[in-house]
Amino acid sequence: MSGQTKFLLDESRIPKRWYNIQADLPKALPPVLHPGTMKPVGPDDLAPLFPMELIMQEVTTEREIDIPEPVRDVFRLWRPTPMFRAHRLEQALGTPARIFYKYEGVSPAGSHKPNTAIAQAFYNKQAGIRRLTTETGAGQWGSSLAFAGALFGIDVTVFQVRVSYNQKPYRRALMESYGARCLPSPSTETAYGRDVLSRTPDHPGSLGIAISEAVEIAAQRDDTKYALGSVLNHVLLHQTIVGIEAIEQLQMADAYPDVVVGCTGGGSNFAGISFPFIGAGLRGGAKPRIVAVEPAACPSLTRGRYAYDFGDTAHMTPLTKMHTLGSTFTPPGFHAGGLRYHGMAPLVSHLKELGLIEAVAYNQVECFEAGVLFGRTEGILPAPEANHAVKGAIEEALRCKREGRAETILFNLCGHGHFDMQAYMDFSAGKLTNQTYSEEELAMALSGLPSVPEPA
Amino acid sequence: MSGQTKFLLDESRIPKRWYNIQADLPKALPPVLHPGTMKPVGPDDLAPLFPMELIMQEVTTEREIDIPEPVRDVFRLWRPTPMFRAHRLEQALGTPARIFYKYEGVSPAGSHKPNTAIAQAFYNKQAGIRRLTTETGAGQWGSSLAFAGALFGIDVTVFQVRVSYNQKPYRRALMESYGARCLPSPSTETAYGRDVLSRTPDHPGSLGIAISEAVEIAAQRDDTKYALGSVLNHVLLHQTIVGIEAIEQLQMADAYPDVVVGCTGGGSNFAGISFPFIGAGLRGGAKPRIVAVEPAACPSLTRGRYAYDFGDTAHMTPLTKMHTLGSTFTPPGFHAGGLRYHGMAPLVSHLKELGLIEAVAYNQVECFEAGVLFGRTEGILPAPEANHAVKGAIEEALRCKREGRAETILFNLCGHGHFDMQAYMDFSAGKLTNQTYSEEELAMALSGLPSVPEPA
Repeated sequence: MSGQTKFLLDESRIPKRWYNIQADLPKALPPVLHPGTMKPVGPDDLAPLFPMELIMQEVTTEREIDIPEPVRDVFRLWRPTPMFRAHRLEQALGTPARIFYKYEGVSPAGSHKPNTAIAQAFYNKQAGIRRLTTETGAGQWGSSLAFAGALFGIDVTVFQVRVSYNQKPYRRALMESYGARCLPSPSTETAYGRDVLSRTPDHPGSLGIAISEAVEIAAQRDDTKYALGSVLNHVLLHQTIVGIEAIEQLQMADAYPDVVVGCTGGGSNFAGISFPFIGAGLRGGAKPRIVAVEPAACPSLTRGRYAYDFGDTAHMTPLTKMHTLGSTFTPPGFHAGGLRYHGMAPLVSHLKELGLIEAVAYNQVECFEAGVLFGRTEGILPAPEANHAVKGAIEEALRCKREGRAETILFNLCGHGHFDMQAYMDFSAGKLTNQTYSEEELAMALSGLPSVPEPA
Repeated sequence: MSGQTKFLLDESRIPKRWYNIQADLPKALPPVLHPGTMKPVGPDDLAPLFPMELIMQEVTTEREIDIPEPVRDVFRLWRPTPMFRAHRLEQALGTPARIFYKYEGVSPAGSHKPNTAIAQAFYNKQAGIRRLTTETGAGQWGSSLAFAGALFGIDVTVFQVRVSYNQKPYRRALMESYGARCLPSPSTETAYGRDVLSRTPDHPGSLGIAISEAVEIAAQRDDTKYALGSVLNHVLLHQTIVGIEAIEQLQMADAYPDVVVGCTGGGSNFAGISFPFIGAGLRGGAKPRIVAVEPAACPSLTRGRYAYDFGDTAHMTPLTKMHTLGSTFTPPGFHAGGLRYHGMAPLVSHLKELGLIEAVAYNQVECFEAGVLFGRTEGILPAPEANHAVKGAIEEALRCKREGRAETILFNLCGHGHFDMQAYMDFSAGKLTNQTYSEEELAMALSGLPSVPEPA
């Protein structure tokens, strides 16, 4: 063992600006379409759901956006997050590669999600908003927004997918400890929820339904808006603080990555670690390979279609062009709940179409094997989502071993697994199996994609 | 909000030496007695259980003990831990006091326990030991030793109190993910366990029984030794790294505490934060007040007797003089499992007798109220054990408010509560009640204390 392990930055080094990759795109993002007219939306169309500052962040092509001081002030509770050199993992793999990981699990909620939750809560508070609604699956996002609401004095109502609400009560307990209200979705509080329940009283819920419920409430009330934990441009923007810090920390290590790896569900933690590097390459700097790792059971980037689709089940949300498995696609019940979404962030999808990123899919058993190896060497047991990034980084390190190349690999360890021990119990007991979907189901979901006139 | 929040030290600042308070005691510790002869034990008596380096650390009066480089090397994964100024908690309390907290929850196991687990695993590995046995209740200690075993290549066998083994499987899953073997105690693997089961087949287990089982196995095999997570002098020694770092971090804040607060079960996290400050005072420096906070349902320091007692139920361990509720005392089932032990560390007990520390006891409901306030202001939801320290610090801050004094308060936040969400669920639901013992039970346990001739 030799060389530095941990790369820390003082809180004065918390970035002062987010990086907006829209400034550097060789081709602009396709427009967002109104769900009623199928015409491009304007800021006013989104005003019922989001405060104007966030709407402007959604569309701006300014390269750098100032991070408000009250947001940086909250970030001081856990940011800058540490970056580590994975000496022990490298030794266990026998690779000549240098592996670095940025660790976002030190946040109070245990993941990267508070990076945007705090910013969204701030802008809503500034706009006079008193309540935020949102959806959550397993609860990483819901608990992060609950934490943010507690700090900014905003009431938070979380629609949690009913099956998770019942089966995984511990993240709900975290939300409630932060003072949030958590409802099982479908609920009786919305017209859409009541409609679903009238047809299927024991409906287990889905993220798409929960989004529809949260949006319905927010659209009805002036003092209430909606918050989303991934997918949207402003959410990805807020996560770029991860990669900006990593660049400075790699300088401390006198290193620059040859490969950057992140796991992708909606796309926010992947964007956070990778966009600042992609942007530097687009502006003439070094161009590391950028690898998105997704679950084989929900493979929007590797098996989805690049097309306009809705973000929710009730089709209340605007349409965005993205890699999608279809809004009616129901991902099988694997453990990385944060990666179970039918679509991919429009920005990430666009970069994939432009050939600026690669994508690969792994099954969950091999990802848990990677996570356990990581835990036994580096000490941190990753969240199931993060296991995908670990697997991707290990595969790159083994490639380096085969090729005899001492490359530098950076990946984002986006959260710890302390809320996910049931999954590790199943894995230890040999009860964890790979989940899959039927090709018929995927084909049917894709055939249901909305028909949209290609905008000029 | 103004002023720095987080005080970080670079990994080069990981302390190079532990602080041994036995060097500065105005009166030496009473000797440890052999359970058979009731005579003071020598190093050889302890050799079946511990490697000689740890035995020497148990008795030495050298002030500073070098931390081996391989131990510091592992510490780089999470040490130095951050110290925070609790600006938001201060504001919420309206106190003129400055509150600082040292946060040990950033370790891979989520608590301070790896500080000694890593050291113990190292010394055992160095001595050629291939297997360690230990006991655990809820699992904080067991998971920490499992982590340490994974890093040093030592097999770890954990006897977990059966009721926790069955009811709280998630820390067990963490132990197993690190590669440890976890058995419900009483088990059929030891003579003592079989004896207990033959009399009470459905026995729920206790820490005292689990210790007896772990000791029995270790004593029988040359390649196997025993590891304890608290109470013993060498364990407390290893935890002093917490306070040593805190002193340097407080210098960054240009501060020195008027009050140091820690929660006490066996005594190790309390010793870790406080001994370096007590020692500085004994050597002529400032003397902050030192406050130990214990659970009212298991009040060894405030209600126990200072007497010789066994550490385990089968009376296999040596006897130490300590504040004890009696080795047959069964603490009621409150949530801070890490504080449910009948005895207190001999060193902490000795300091209490010498008037160098204060002790106070709180009930669990008021401690959870304090923990939830802390979570909603500072973001981190503490472990139930740590809630006792939070409560103690808040009470000191409110005293400062009443008295109009701008004192500096430091406390040890020894772990996060992400494995303890059932307790928070019960609290949110209003189902958490204060637990208590009967005075008759305590009197009976105290009347059963062993009769020991006071050594010269």
